[in-house]
This record gives sequence, structure tokens and C-alpha cells, in this order.
Amino acid sequence: MQELSNMKPSEIRMLFRQNQLTCPTAGMANGYTQANLVVLKKDLAFEFLLFCQRNPKPCPVLDVTEPGLPIPKLVAPEADLRTDLPKYRIYKHGQLAEEVTDILNYWEDDMVAFLLGCSFTFEQALVNNGISVRHIEEGRNVAMYKTNIPCVKAGPFEGPMVVSMRPIPEKDVVRAVQVTSRFPAVHGAPIHIGNPESIGIKDIEKPDFGDRVTIRAGEIPVFWACGVTPQAIAMHVKPELMITHAPGHMFITDLRDEQFGVL
Amino acid sequence: MQELSNMKPSEIRMLFRQNQLTCPTAGMANGYTQANLVVLKKDLAFEFLLFCQRNPKPCPVLDVTEPGLPIPKLVAPEADLRTDLPKYRIYKHGQLAEEVTDILNYWEDDMVAFLLGCSFTFEQALVNNGISVRHIEEGRNVAMYKTNIPCVKAGPFEGPMVVSMRPIPEKDVVRAVQVTSRFPAVHGAPIHIGNPESIGIKDIEKPDFGDRVTIRAGEIPVFWACGVTPQAIAMHVKPELMITHAPGHMFITDLRDEQFGVL
Repeated sequence: MQELSNMKPSEIRMLFRQNQLTCPTAGMANGYTQANLVVLKKDLAFEFLLFCQRNPKPCPVLDVTEPGLPIPKLVAPEADLRTDLPKYRIYKHGQLAEEVTDILNYWEDDMVAFLLGCSFTFEQALVNNGISVRHIEEGRNVAMYKTNIPCVKAGPFEGPMVVSMRPIPEKDVVRAVQVTSRFPAVHGAPIHIGNPESIGIKDIEKPDFGDRVTIRAGEIPVFWACGVTPQAIAMHVKPELMITHAPGHMFITDLRDEQFGVL
Repeated sequence: MQELSNMKPSEIRMLFRQNQLTCPTAGMANGYTQANLVVLKKDLAFEFLLFCQRNPKPCPVLDVTEPGLPIPKLVAPEADLRTDLPKYRIYKHGQLAEEVTDILNYWEDDMVAFLLGCSFTFEQALVNNGISVRHIEEGRNVAMYKTNIPCVKAGPFEGPMVVSMRPIPEKDVVRAVQVTSRFPAVHGAPIHIGNPESIGIKDIEKPDFGDRVTIRAGEIPVFWACGVTPQAIAMHVKPELMITHAPGHMFITDLRDEQFGVL
């Protein structure tokens, strides 16, 4: 079989559709943008879209489907969001009910799917600029923390922003800001540099989600808005049914990371 | 009376609220961002927001109000959109019914107001960079054209993009792209440079909206996505009731133009 890193997004999606592959997508179809998935019923879709609109750093919208239509026309017009991710999570009234490899049995006529930008894109940009990403080096999940920064409310959707942290060598901090600022559609510039306490993080050694990573001498903790935010907040609303990708099992779009670069 | 150009947005909005002033807003509260207004009933709001989301260059969303609440919390939390613009247009079933100085009698519990970025912001940035804007020089309205570029459809909202044209000296074209690229929230970079015909404009001397402006030797026509697009497209849907600002009579926000600059 061809290397997964060199395959086209459509080829990999076909493997997911046929259930020939069910694993995390990091490193697949290199250079192509991966996305978080959130599926809600239409009665919540307007307020959720408004929430994303008001909180573009944690919730950068790449595509929203027409109600009932599982096709992301802007980012992968030949894909079917019901089958083309490796693994999904079904949440009922805010509780994880099941993990499945397709959502054909759950899809309804009034469902709207949201694809939100993911940090893989800007991490690749950091690496391309010679700035190593610690949790990739250490083979761990990124460290994520709840903050005291409130998101801007929309309808029932409200709560604190979740951030991811990457330790950056002092000499590279400015460049890390510049590099990630180029990608506002995938979380963009950091939201905080340097002092975890001032954004409500009491113990940097104890992330709320993901894994602890090593912070070395001469490194500054840099914080980016995290795509876990909208899922965490949607969960609080306890919708009758919400579907997301399983952690790390993202949707692979047809667009290349560089297409999201501004200047 | 204090110069309108130096007054604060809240002071000028109060004059509008009290109907002490009813004129176009160009040049008022210098340095503060002005916005286009579109008000629709909630049943169309999700699809209209989706349309804006899918067409960010012609429809850059600055703020969307909660249904029924006329307060733009993000851009001017003390303003009331029913009274704080100098002049409004009421459209019924796609036809202009009336121009009014407040919309208190038209406002209903299920209305949603959209504030969309306006070209005043990037024009000021051009001027600050030594690039003169012809229609300002000539004291005219900007020249606007229908194109053959289709917007991305959302629900009932579909149709061609409307663009504005500014003639730019050849030596300044690259800088004009750079300067306006910094402001994606107010139409951003041009969508076309140089050849009107290739975007479906047959006669550059005959704009579809606004005024003809002079193109001098050594100047290139440069085209930006225009905020008239969403209004023109909403009109085609012939909503029972749609309210907009009257042309040139914009909403003045509390945010400064530079706050919309990326990098």
C-alpha cells in the first residue's frame, strides 16, 4: 500500500468509507488541511454558527453544510461526512453514548455539519519554520487547559475558552507569532504568551485534556485557542444529539494548508 | 459644534438617535470602523449568516445580534441599531417601501441585525499609504459593477458578486494588494486586477451602481468585493421585510480601523 502520508485526501477518505482503515489521521495526506467535525440539528445550528462567528479563534469555521446534506461543498465536494471520517463519537444529552465508524444510522434530514479548523495546519507551519513542536517530538497529545477567558455568548452557547500550550524557545517566540498569524482560519496567532496564571491556569503540569509535555529551561509556554472549545461548550448545552469526530480522527479536506495562509 | 471628524462614535450616534443629524457618514469619527446594516427575520437569519460565512470577501461579518435584541454587543455595546444610524431603508418583498430615520415601528421580536464590514476602512488604509482613492478625489460615489463571479449559494441566497473599482497607478498596485490584504474583515485583498472583461464587466465606463470615475493613463483598474453584494442578493429572495442602512448612511462602531488589521 502507498504511504498514507503521500496519498490524496480522496483516496484516504475512500479507505475510511469502506472501513479499511480506522486510526488517527495525524501525518496522513501531508500538506492537506484536516478539520474538526461537529454535527447538530438545525434548531441549534444558527446559534452555534453565531457562536463560532463571535469566537473565531477557538472556532474557525471552514465549512457548514446545508441542512440534511452531508456534503462539505467548499472543502471536499465529493466527500460524505457520514462515512468519510475514521471514527465518530455520538453524544446524547451531553453524554458520550457510542463510538462508531460511520453515522449513516444517526443522520437525519435536519442535521447540519460544521467543519472547524484544527491545529495540525499551524503546527506544520511551525515545523516548516524550524520551530519544533514538543508534543510531536515526545509522541504525545497536545496539552490543553481550561482558562478564565470567557467566550462571547450566543444563544445557549457559553463558557470558558480551552487553549493548547506549546513550549517555544525564547528566541523563536516572535517568529511563532508571525508564522501562526498567517493562518487565522486554523486558530491563528497565540492568545497568550508567558504567564499561565493570568489566564486562570493554576498548574501547568496538570493539563485538563491531553498530555503533560516537558517545558525546558529557556522556553516560554505559548497558548493558542483550541478546537476543543466548541465541543466542550456544545456539550454543556446537552443537545438531544450531537456528533463529533473521535479525538485525533479528523476529516481530511481537499484544500492545502497553504491555501489558508493570508499573505 | 465639535468637528464631526473628531467626535467619538457614541457622540455622533447620539445625534442620530435624537434626529439632530441625518446625513452620510463618510469622514465622521475618523479612524473608527463603519459598517453596513442588514436586518432580517430569524427564519432567514441562519441561511443569510451561512451565505456570509461562505462569501467572506463580499460579506465580512463584524457582528450579528441576538434575535430581537437591537444591540451590537461586540462592536458597540451601548448602541441601539433601531435609532443610531442616520437613515434606513425599508424593503417589503424586495421593493423599497420607505426611507426612515429610525426603525422603532418596524422592529420585531424575531429580528436579527447583521453588521458587515465596509470599504471605508481599507480606503483610509490606502490613503495612509500614499495611494489616492479616485472617487474620493472626485467627490463621487465609488463605481460598482455586477460580475460573472457566482457567490457560493446558501439556502435561498444566491447570485453574482458585485465589485467596486478603484483605478490604481501601476507602481502602486502591489502595495494596494498588501495594504488591503491586512484587512480581511473589511473586504480584504482585491478579487481581480486589470481586465474587466474577464470578470464579466462589458463597459468599465458604465457602472451598474454608483458613479463613473476617471481612469488615467498608467493606471490599472483594481476590483474589490463589494458590500452591496449581500443586499442585492437578499433583495432577490424578496423577504417579507428587510431593513438596511440608506446608501452612505452607515453604522459607526466603537472599534478602530486598525483593530481589524491582521499583522
